[in-house]
Amino acid sequence: MNTIYILNGPNLNLLGTREPEIYGKTTLADIEQMCQDFGASRALAIQFLQTNHEGQLVDWIQEAAQKAQGLLINPAAYSHTSLAVRDALSACQIPVVEVHLSNIHRREPFRHLSYVSQVATGIICGFGADGYLLGLQALLCLLGNERGPRRS
Amino acid sequence: MNTIYILNGPNLNLLGTREPEIYGKTTLADIEQMCQDFGASRALAIQFLQTNHEGQLVDWIQEAAQKAQGLLINPAAYSHTSLAVRDALSACQIPVVEVHLSNIHRREPFRHLSYVSQVATGIICGFGADGYLLGLQALLCLLGNERGPRRS
Amino acid sequence: MNTIYILNGPNLNLLGTREPEIYGKTTLADIEQMCQDFGASRALAIQFLQTNHEGQLVDWIQEAAQKAQGLLINPAAYSHTSLAVRDALSACQIPVVEVHLSNIHRREPFRHLSYVSQVATGIICGFGADGYLLGLQALLCLLGNERGPRRS
Amino acid sequence: MNTIYILNGPNLNLLGTREPEIYGKTTLADIEQMCQDFGASRALAIQFLQTNHEGQLVDWIQEAAQKAQGLLINPAAYSHTSLAVRDALSACQIPVVEVHLSNIHRREPFRHLSYVSQVATGIICGFGADGYLLGLQALLCLLGNERGPRRS
Amino acid sequence: MNTIYILNGPNLNLLGTREPEIYGKTTLADIEQMCQDFGASRALAIQFLQTNHEGQLVDWIQEAAQKAQGLLINPAAYSHTSLAVRDALSACQIPVVEVHLSNIHRREPFRHLSYVSQVATGIICGFGADGYLLGLQALLCLLGNERGPRRS
Amino acid sequence: MNTIYILNGPNLNLLGTREPEIYGKTTLADIEQMCQDFGASRALAIQFLQTNHEGQLVDWIQEAAQKAQGLLINPAAYSHTSLAVRDALSACQIPVVEVHLSNIHRREPFRHLSYVSQVATGIICGFGADGYLLGLQALLCLLGNERGPRRS
Amino acid sequence: MNTIYILNGPNLNLLGTREPEIYGKTTLADIEQMCQDFGASRALAIQFLQTNHEGQLVDWIQEAAQKAQGLLINPAAYSHTSLAVRDALSACQIPVVEVHLSNIHRREPFRHLSYVSQVATGIICGFGADGYLLGLQALLCLLGNERGPRRS
Amino acid sequence: MNTIYILNGPNLNLLGTREPEIYGKTTLADIEQMCQDFGASRALAIQFLQTNHEGQLVDWIQEAAQKAQGLLINPAAYSHTSLAVRDALSACQIPVVEVHLSNIHRREPFRHLSYVSQVATGIICGFGADGYLLGLQALLCLLGNERGPRRS
Amino acid sequence: MNTIYILNGPNLNLLGTREPEIYGKTTLADIEQMCQDFGASRALAIQFLQTNHEGQLVDWIQEAAQKAQGLLINPAAYSHTSLAVRDALSACQIPVVEVHLSNIHRREPFRHLSYVSQVATGIICGFGADGYLLGLQALLCLLGNERGPRRS
Amino acid sequence: MNTIYILNGPNLNLLGTREPEIYGKTTLADIEQMCQDFGASRALAIQFLQTNHEGQLVDWIQEAAQKAQGLLINPAAYSHTSLAVRDALSACQIPVVEVHLSNIHRREPFRHLSYVSQVATGIICGFGADGYLLGLQALLCLLGNERGPRRS
Amino acid sequence: MNTIYILNGPNLNLLGTREPEIYGKTTLADIEQMCQDFGASRALAIQFLQTNHEGQLVDWIQEAAQKAQGLLINPAAYSHTSLAVRDALSACQIPVVEVHLSNIHRREPFRHLSYVSQVATGIICGFGADGYLLGLQALLCLLGNERGPRRS
Amino acid sequence: MNTIYILNGPNLNLLGTREPEIYGKTTLADIEQMCQDFGASRALAIQFLQTNHEGQLVDWIQEAAQKAQGLLINPAAYSHTSLAVRDALSACQIPVVEVHLSNIHRREPFRHLSYVSQVATGIICGFGADGYLLGLQALLCLLGNERGPRRS
Repeated sequence: MNTIYILNGPNLNLLGTREPEIYGKTTLADIEQMCQDFGASRALAIQFLQTNHEGQLVDWIQEAAQKAQGLLINPAAYSHTSLAVRDALSACQIPVVEVHLSNIHRREPFRHLSYVSQVATGIICGFGADGYLLGLQALLCLLGNERGPRRS
Repeated sequence: MNTIYILNGPNLNLLGTREPEIYGKTTLADIEQMCQDFGASRALAIQFLQTNHEGQLVDWIQEAAQKAQGLLINPAAYSHTSLAVRDALSACQIPVVEVHLSNIHRREPFRHLSYVSQVATGIICGFGADGYLLGLQALLCLLGNERGPRRS
Repeated sequence: MNTIYILNGPNLNLLGTREPEIYGKTTLADIEQMCQDFGASRALAIQFLQTNHEGQLVDWIQEAAQKAQGLLINPAAYSHTSLAVRDALSACQIPVVEVHLSNIHRREPFRHLSYVSQVATGIICGFGADGYLLGLQALLCLLGNERGPRRS
Repeated sequence: MNTIYILNGPNLNLLGTREPEIYGKTTLADIEQMCQDFGASRALAIQFLQTNHEGQLVDWIQEAAQKAQGLLINPAAYSHTSLAVRDALSACQIPVVEVHLSNIHRREPFRHLSYVSQVATGIICGFGADGYLLGLQALLCLLGNERGPRRS
Repeated sequence: MNTIYILNGPNLNLLGTREPEIYGKTTLADIEQMCQDFGASRALAIQFLQTNHEGQLVDWIQEAAQKAQGLLINPAAYSHTSLAVRDALSACQIPVVEVHLSNIHRREPFRHLSYVSQVATGIICGFGADGYLLGLQALLCLLGNERGPRRS
Repeated sequence: MNTIYILNGPNLNLLGTREPEIYGKTTLADIEQMCQDFGASRALAIQFLQTNHEGQLVDWIQEAAQKAQGLLINPAAYSHTSLAVRDALSACQIPVVEVHLSNIHRREPFRHLSYVSQVATGIICGFGADGYLLGLQALLCLLGNERGPRRS
Repeated sequence: MNTIYILNGPNLNLLGTREPEIYGKTTLADIEQMCQDFGASRALAIQFLQTNHEGQLVDWIQEAAQKAQGLLINPAAYSHTSLAVRDALSACQIPVVEVHLSNIHRREPFRHLSYVSQVATGIICGFGADGYLLGLQALLCLLGNERGPRRS
Repeated sequence: MNTIYILNGPNLNLLGTREPEIYGKTTLADIEQMCQDFGASRALAIQFLQTNHEGQLVDWIQEAAQKAQGLLINPAAYSHTSLAVRDALSACQIPVVEVHLSNIHRREPFRHLSYVSQVATGIICGFGADGYLLGLQALLCLLGNERGPRRS
Repeated sequence: MNTIYILNGPNLNLLGTREPEIYGKTTLADIEQMCQDFGASRALAIQFLQTNHEGQLVDWIQEAAQKAQGLLINPAAYSHTSLAVRDALSACQIPVVEVHLSNIHRREPFRHLSYVSQVATGIICGFGADGYLLGLQALLCLLGNERGPRRS
Repeated sequence: MNTIYILNGPNLNLLGTREPEIYGKTTLADIEQMCQDFGASRALAIQFLQTNHEGQLVDWIQEAAQKAQGLLINPAAYSHTSLAVRDALSACQIPVVEVHLSNIHRREPFRHLSYVSQVATGIICGFGADGYLLGLQALLCLLGNERGPRRS
Repeated sequence: MNTIYILNGPNLNLLGTREPEIYGKTTLADIEQMCQDFGASRALAIQFLQTNHEGQLVDWIQEAAQKAQGLLINPAAYSHTSLAVRDALSACQIPVVEVHLSNIHRREPFRHLSYVSQVATGIICGFGADGYLLGLQALLCLLGNERGPRRS
Repeated sequence: MNTIYILNGPNLNLLGTREPEIYGKTTLADIEQMCQDFGASRALAIQFLQTNHEGQLVDWIQEAAQKAQGLLINPAAYSHTSLAVRDALSACQIPVVEVHLSNIHRREPFRHLSYVSQVATGIICGFGADGYLLGLQALLCLLGNERGPRRS
């Protein structure tokens, strides 16, 4: 059974609880539930975590590199400012999938550059909460368990 | 039954036939087959096309906007240079998923800016041929038929 | 009797048929009719063409340089990316008027630079379909047939 | 009867009196006469003014916004340096046409950016003195009195 | 009794009289009244002036440096383009407070750089008309008459 | 009774204890006392906090958004580097006042851009410790309790 | 017997027929004749082609990679704008020589960057029509048939 | 007898009266006296003027072009921001000498670019008030009356 | 007896345990041992610390400024992104030596700028673990205990 | 009999003697021999020189301009940094061919700009030692002795 | 008796001997004669030198700092590229006047930045050979012997 | 016995003899003595050289690559401008240590980029004359003779 760490960066704990008319009503807890369900259906152990602290993200990435077979990360604002996160990911030898809820290339210019993209295996952005499940599916492909989304 | 156009940009016809030790042996025909199989399993009619001509891509995007419910595009080099493709996509009212085989953010600087990303609904890159199936799955989500990859 | 080529670049064929609440209901066919009417009133033979292909624009510009006394061009997206169109226009020895429906300086930054402006005789932008008639009038001035719009 | 302000920026008073072998012999007085004639033929009251002072331009733009139905401005050098002129125009609720005698995109790089273009309704440049008449014609279109230059 | 000059730059005379739905109904006369009232309550003689002319601002700044103990300036558009205003302020030996009605850092990029900020003692922006009173209060602090807003 | 959070970023705990000949002798405790006194005089409950940790600032901003009616922040070095702080503030629906002790526009170029300014309601900088009281006064204005500093 | 493709980009078909006082009277047909003569003297089969279409250049480059032992390309304007041409050349495993008639480094700044130079084996520019023969000679060297121009 | 206009830009009227410990005690009146004395010794009629208004400088430059044989200008802050002054000088057919009291290349970066230098005949900077006399001497050379400073 | 703080930034705890074929087998514990041995030989008390948290680094720097006579820091990724670390160091009045294991100028461009270098006393980079001992030696020089490495 | 100077810049004396596995075994002496042989076959007197000194290159270029009919230069590192070499070449009235052994556009960015290219007649790069012979052949064309490489 | 070094940089030895229709017929020897005559009339010992070597300029500047009371330098191309010359001048404690024959601000962009201007006392450019005499006159002013060019 | 070349760039011969109140009284001769002493204590033959000529530095680097086991270089101003020095060092196969007396990152921006740093093994800057001894010690480490400064 493979273990997947899902790491969430700053302010993602606010998801769905603030300005629901804009960001929708899906909370981070909802997303975790979706991921746990998906994991259960695919024999994946999901470790789902959130923090506002850059150093904490680094700590967890190092931990994931030891204990997990795959890493899914939504680094939020740290995507664009944290070389420490980038370096921690760069030292990982497990596949890393970067997920963004929104399409960061349609937002402010300072969100167009992601240091994480420079070291991630692949990137999925713009599909909202579904991006997490697509990311888990992508990890399954990278781990060789499956080829693309199940066809039947 | 939904119709999906899958458009492939310049030089993708060479896939798998040149430098297989670098790019792998998967040909564009193999990718089309994978997509047709996935489409068959999900009741999607797939229109799979490739061209080296920018204007031809524009023509097909306009056609897709009339005839299809979703569009998946791998614009290859035109991602970075074609405002005509960007404008054509921008005029589409169907969901658009941009797919790249490689992680363009790990390549030359001139590949980091994609004009297509500025108008696409979402982006998937770095997962090789599997990116096409993830993109189709994402289109299913966007069309509301499904939520993420099937869980069971 | 003078001949004027009117060349229209990529996606202008969509005019008025898509998102009429935004771009209005005037189609490219309507614009052609306006231009043909104006031409008829001024003894101008109008050759009105549209293409999504950069190379086709270059071909037609070369043809116009042989067969016409004036050229009006709305290069759309190729304004900003095509040195090939610029070079073809630069080799023309007939007057060239560049027309844009919208005021490109109020749009995205990548639309502020027009390579065509560097070689056009003059530029008219921001007046919608009327810009074509103003452009034809400007060509009449440049050809010496008239001085500004008719005063009586 | 509509009133149109025509405002001319710095150094335009020199037109035609200095270096006629380069700039031609048309003086600003000639241009005013052309505009007054055109106005007479179209029932437009023309207020034609020139100043070398940025603040004076701002004063007149504010005045025009109160007293006129349209504004034609050749801001000359202030096009490229004056945010005060830009802000005054931005506060106008009447249509604004920016006119340049020469094609500013074929001149020095510091003339390529016009702050005025960012707030003008439309722009006409490169047609010499005829640009003023084309600009008045464009204002007629914008005011809804006419559609393009008279066809007969 | 201290004298304070309050200088207002281009287009601020339009305040409240144009587009009240956007900028509110407070006029520059209302602001002057607020300032005069505040001055009266604190034994400050207020000289309140507005101009659209850069050179006039320079003249008044030089005058203030001779006659006043403090200077409050809302340079509007000249904030971003006038080194002459900057130099005049730089030569002042009295405290200078720069005030902006709106938060200029949330507006167009060309409004993010203020040459005046480089020489002002302090800056207050984004509080609308209240910014003027906060600025006067700040001047009182700088002049040593008071420490922050009155606590009782 | 309104609650105001006052958040202080990295190294501000050193204030007044190091290099007093340069930065003066006012300590952060002195500033807190000034703020508490002002709060007492205006029926404001003041929560005054300092941290060197970016993530901690994000946590407190989220807390303030829940428990307070206004937020005053001196983000110090994180003004210029932290998109996480910016995003947390951007999600707040209470007024946010950014305060800097020094005039950051007279310091090193990397201090001229504040990400916080892009989302703050207003900014006050360059008035030393008095800036905190001016900021509290500004919050009172924004909360509608008062109009500018008390006039009597 | 080796086959060499010689590909000519947009507007080169105009060579010698327009503005001969500037560009000389040598036509593209003359250059082809020179190349065919040179090829005949060296047992090279020359395939000489011209197009204004970017996509056509890509098609021919792919064809050359299959059928030829060497490729000489004068990409004209596409040198500076086409990543599609660059990618096609990059996939070639035969030697590629880039030729320009003029010295592009003495022309407009936008002609100083050639994407093709980044993937060509070598570059020859500034020698007019003779550059084609020098380029063929260079291909002979690269193919190992000869060392430099014949010495006797 | 030749007439020379000497034009002084914004804030130069403050010279010597403010911060004498920094800028010295030489006033603009002193400089005028030096220039008048020099003029008297060389049969030059000196017209010495100062203004804080950009438009006034433009007016005077136009006047000088009509009435004088040479122009010496210290444009102060307008050197760096005024295209209107640049254009007025550019239209002059008399020699123009730009003078700066200080060495502008040792000051802030925004003072390193002078638009006036792009059209002046020559430049003298960094020699304080003596720069005016050197500039007059240079004008004598340019007018052909003398060769360099008198040798005996 | 002098106390020296040695601070290590993010991911340095991974040293030697991951990818030893690339980074060698020296662990951070090995480096600490080397430093403790050196300290013992020179009567230096060494405080050796590592953290992934930016705020923690700031806390320790403030602590070192109180308790130590010298500071050696390898800020790793925070060198390039942390103004908070820079400000903390800038407030230190003890000598600061910046050490990097690799030559950061031979790595990615975003590692070429170190904010820490702008405030450090001196920098040593590119000598691997030996850089720590050279840094301690440099601190001895700066503290005046010794002149360069011992000569005998 | 024509004389050709062949000038070689810094570090080219190392050619073939250092790192032959990378740069090949051809020495500068070998290249001179090739050039002398070619010269002998074409009645060219070859003056072949190398120096590490920028000033020496300038001296020799001035000498060549007096004594030779053509100049071939491989300026090596000075291509990218020496305006003195550029100016010396610019003053030459004989044809100048710039040669580089490697394709400088595939190397570090600071090698992409060659000041020499801005004044050379033509450029040949990327063909190794053969580039010298191609350059001599190009000079023969420029001198009118021959048309391209000998065809028979 | 004061000694003045006059140093001339690369390619100035060509003056007047090459392209006299462009640069005039004045040779460097003529300029030296003018300077020697001027020196004789003012009791200045002139040391007049020219070199194409950057290092030689540095040597001479160091020598001048020992032996001379003033330094006049026309660094030619080294103005724009030589920090070594800049540093040598910066270490001088005698006045330094930079002279350029042409107005470098009207030439190519890479000539607009002079490192020498950053350390020179003053600059004179655009007056041809007369600039040398004006420079000597300026040195006399700086040395306190005279005030401006002699008035009688 | 190992030989070490110590190369010193332009203006370092002035060390200690000019402006001692700023740069201290240590002369280059003093530094050489320190290095010779250190060399004597470690069985290193030291070749200590200084030049103001870029080409001379290149010559000596080439010589060192032949005759020495290690190279210590203080390139002074050539650090920032000389690609010729960079290329010469790049061709060296012995370890290269770059030393700067001052911390170049605290000086003018044009001193922040060192081309030499891109090819040096390691860098030591900001420790004054002691940097030379630290550099020699570093070379001993790199040559494997010792590990860090001697611990006892």
